[in-house]
Amino acid sequence: MASQDKKAKPQEKPKKEEEKNTENQVEKSTKGSVGVTPRQEDYSRWYTDVVQKADLADYGPVRGCMVIKPYGYALWENIQGELDKRFKATGHQNAYFPLFIPMSFIEKEAEHVEGFAPELAVVTHGGGKELEEPLVVRPTSETVIGHMFSQWIQSHRDLPLLINQWANVVRWEMRTRLFLRTSEFLWQEGHTAHATQEEAVQETLRMLDVYADFAINEAAIPVIKGRKSDQERFAGAVASYTIEAMMGNKWALQAGTSHDLGQNFARTFDIKYTDEKNEQQFCWTTSWGMSTRMVGAIIMAHGDDQGLRLPPRLAPIQLVVIPIYRSDEEKKNVMEAVLDICEPLISVGIRVKIDEREGLTPGFKMNDWEMRGVPLRMEIGPRDLEKNSVMLARRDVPGKEGKQAVSRDNLIPKITRRLNLIQRNMLMQATAFRDENLHEAKSYDEMKKIVEDGWALIWHCGKPECEDRIKEETKATSRCFPLDKNEEWNPKGQKCTVCGEPAFGQAYFSRAY
Amino acid sequence: MASQDKKAKPQEKPKKEEEKNTENQVEKSTKGSVGVTPRQEDYSRWYTDVVQKADLADYGPVRGCMVIKPYGYALWENIQGELDKRFKATGHQNAYFPLFIPMSFIEKEAEHVEGFAPELAVVTHGGGKELEEPLVVRPTSETVIGHMFSQWIQSHRDLPLLINQWANVVRWEMRTRLFLRTSEFLWQEGHTAHATQEEAVQETLRMLDVYADFAINEAAIPVIKGRKSDQERFAGAVASYTIEAMMGNKWALQAGTSHDLGQNFARTFDIKYTDEKNEQQFCWTTSWGMSTRMVGAIIMAHGDDQGLRLPPRLAPIQLVVIPIYRSDEEKKNVMEAVLDICEPLISVGIRVKIDEREGLTPGFKMNDWEMRGVPLRMEIGPRDLEKNSVMLARRDVPGKEGKQAVSRDNLIPKITRRLNLIQRNMLMQATAFRDENLHEAKSYDEMKKIVEDGWALIWHCGKPECEDRIKEETKATSRCFPLDKNEEWNPKGQKCTVCGEPAFGQAYFSRAY
Repeated sequence: MASQDKKAKPQEKPKKEEEKNTENQVEKSTKGSVGVTPRQEDYSRWYTDVVQKADLADYGPVRGCMVIKPYGYALWENIQGELDKRFKATGHQNAYFPLFIPMSFIEKEAEHVEGFAPELAVVTHGGGKELEEPLVVRPTSETVIGHMFSQWIQSHRDLPLLINQWANVVRWEMRTRLFLRTSEFLWQEGHTAHATQEEAVQETLRMLDVYADFAINEAAIPVIKGRKSDQERFAGAVASYTIEAMMGNKWALQAGTSHDLGQNFARTFDIKYTDEKNEQQFCWTTSWGMSTRMVGAIIMAHGDDQGLRLPPRLAPIQLVVIPIYRSDEEKKNVMEAVLDICEPLISVGIRVKIDEREGLTPGFKMNDWEMRGVPLRMEIGPRDLEKNSVMLARRDVPGKEGKQAVSRDNLIPKITRRLNLIQRNMLMQATAFRDENLHEAKSYDEMKKIVEDGWALIWHCGKPECEDRIKEETKATSRCFPLDKNEEWNPKGQKCTVCGEPAFGQAYFSRAY
Repeated sequence: MASQDKKAKPQEKPKKEEEKNTENQVEKSTKGSVGVTPRQEDYSRWYTDVVQKADLADYGPVRGCMVIKPYGYALWENIQGELDKRFKATGHQNAYFPLFIPMSFIEKEAEHVEGFAPELAVVTHGGGKELEEPLVVRPTSETVIGHMFSQWIQSHRDLPLLINQWANVVRWEMRTRLFLRTSEFLWQEGHTAHATQEEAVQETLRMLDVYADFAINEAAIPVIKGRKSDQERFAGAVASYTIEAMMGNKWALQAGTSHDLGQNFARTFDIKYTDEKNEQQFCWTTSWGMSTRMVGAIIMAHGDDQGLRLPPRLAPIQLVVIPIYRSDEEKKNVMEAVLDICEPLISVGIRVKIDEREGLTPGFKMNDWEMRGVPLRMEIGPRDLEKNSVMLARRDVPGKEGKQAVSRDNLIPKITRRLNLIQRNMLMQATAFRDENLHEAKSYDEMKKIVEDGWALIWHCGKPECEDRIKEETKATSRCFPLDKNEEWNPKGQKCTVCGEPAFGQAYFSRAY
């Protein structure tokens, strides 16, 4: 939550015609206006172009509130599906808790209220009357879920209690950007209670692994798992863990967090259990969340100057089919072949879209779907029919190199194989890009240069004052103490690269969303 | 929304030990306390008992806000899954619109604001400041979606626009009851825009059919499709259609509604398109919704004095397995067999729960799962092992009649067949019950008697004054003009059974939730 973004787009955007991108308008526009601002020219503008021109989201009428359009929501549904499967496989159950939280609940945990108070939306009137106690629209649900847990948990036999909620939350934001920071967003929040500290820590790290597994294997984003510094810790947590992703402009984006809450919320909300010796004990709790921000991460980790690139495993449309014809006769034959070809693909679960729009050239359609990030394109025209073949074009390999004519026989394995290849290649590309831009800094001067255009790994004290100084002088923030670089915490007693105090461990710093 | 329920449970319920029903407490309690109040004794109390003892939901800390517990939420997820499949199959796409709506939007449509103003929750402060314009927490989203549609729709080629949203909504309620009426509830709301009135009316009725198909074939509730009277119409609609379900106490419950909005919202929110002659036209819009109320409908349509009865197609657990053993040796053998038996069942998608809880008798477990409505139970003990059989017990057929020993061979088709039988039988039972309690009334006196314990079909003028009188004198409300009884609207010029004015058609009246 401590991220900042000086380039954030003001919410009161002018309603320019070119930004109102419905299919109809795409149809009317020329090829040029389908394109997006090149990343080098203005990364921030590129992002907004992609979100709006690919029809992912739009601003709503209320400050900072986002409308998720069908294509963006379908991507979110696929993210949800993959996460939900993993949550259930690790023994969690979904439930639903109230949107409204009594203000007094939020105020119970000192750090928690300090962290969230500036971002609260408050309901003061209900049913035509002023409320006796104002209600907060949930910014996160530790407090209300803690309250319910205290009623549900009595005995050690009730533990662990492993709950997840899919919900909307509200954190009032002044500077918003679609998917990355909006006043309302969608997320899941896991909340668990355990009998021992060890189990709670295990759960915190297990869910961090679940997030990393999802990000790497579904979103093709090679995230780095790490521990947050004290300053970046969740308000009320003992320790926060994060997966950090590198975006196309080499800024970092926190893509998911998992918190060890110790006994803080258990003590505040009286979450107790009777142990096997019949003694009352406080529980140990955790919470963890991933949000629609992940959509922003996917856009910025993979997008290029042609627009969006979606990993096949999450893409709402995995294969788009462009029929090519000039006459009605050709159209009839081509469309017959298209349907013959697509039916078996759809029946095995490949997500296929046939672009039957009238009045658009095949070239326009190709650009359009390229911009919308569809991983694989199939072109079928009269010449392909003659040769009993189709043309396949990969979104991840530009130009002729990514195109290949293949025979119409056995298309299912050919397409499945290509989707798998694209998925793997996108992860490889993102990993290579990340690794090229991670650098160890031996001095503060070196670090300053690195964070202008990459991530710097330094020995770091973890102190807020030191982080504030770095942020002021370089605009870079502490991303995390990566777990793989800190298997032991500073075993050789290194000093902080910036302030010279004893280091806590090695940490990444970079510009961040 | 015009329903009333004098027996509504006050929200500030005393926190009695017996009502705090966690697994652990079930474990500690005797068989007696697992039971629920008999329906004849107190139907209202029976309902509350079932909801709480079957672990479906709980009251939250905020007036009228519900916590949906994992078992209740799993039921809702299955409802969602089946509805979502049907929405997508009829060409709808999911999207997400903001929780907050400017107060001025709600006020734009005169009838709409009149209908919803008394139920609004209002956000007046955000980010520590008083807002310039208060924001309403959405009670329904016609206004904000209408606003977005006006931006997304330009040409006839953009139509029809078929959108659905899964969301929480808030309607401030004074008297609440879990699932049936709570200040916050979960639902889906479909919103569509069309070029012609005919198409919009078709869509309204298509979605009514989708709801009825879902209710009948998934929830095993034989709903009656009908048109609402003017008084019961959605605020802002031209015509509202409903599916009405009969509960176990013969009260009605409105289980889903579909609204023909005419051009009312299109004119208010300027939803226009350019037709093929290049002229501007207003769209015709619809909206339709089904909510977590459906969970209440399922409870009350099927529940009996033993508790919940869930239709197999929606049940979170379709088959519960109770291992029976006395010694460790027996346990080892029985559990081995249980796992052997369950693995193939689970692998074909049957939702199986093995009750491995320690320290509980098999009899206790049987009662517990009976109360929680699991359609089919399998018991396996040492004697069953000897005979290479298992005992199957159907929830819908009480006592010995519903129990049958079956050989362990080919269990998959045997269990699948039984689940299908149970599904069909539950629908048959509910249909027979409904039909026994639908009566034509030839006079107002006759009607008065009928609505004391059933639904009365009368010729009805449809006038608010007449409905108000009936409500005051009999507590019965107009449920709907059923479509199957009104293929033509009053072709023979009948008079209203109550007031003698010309009838609009035949209508059902009954007590209702």
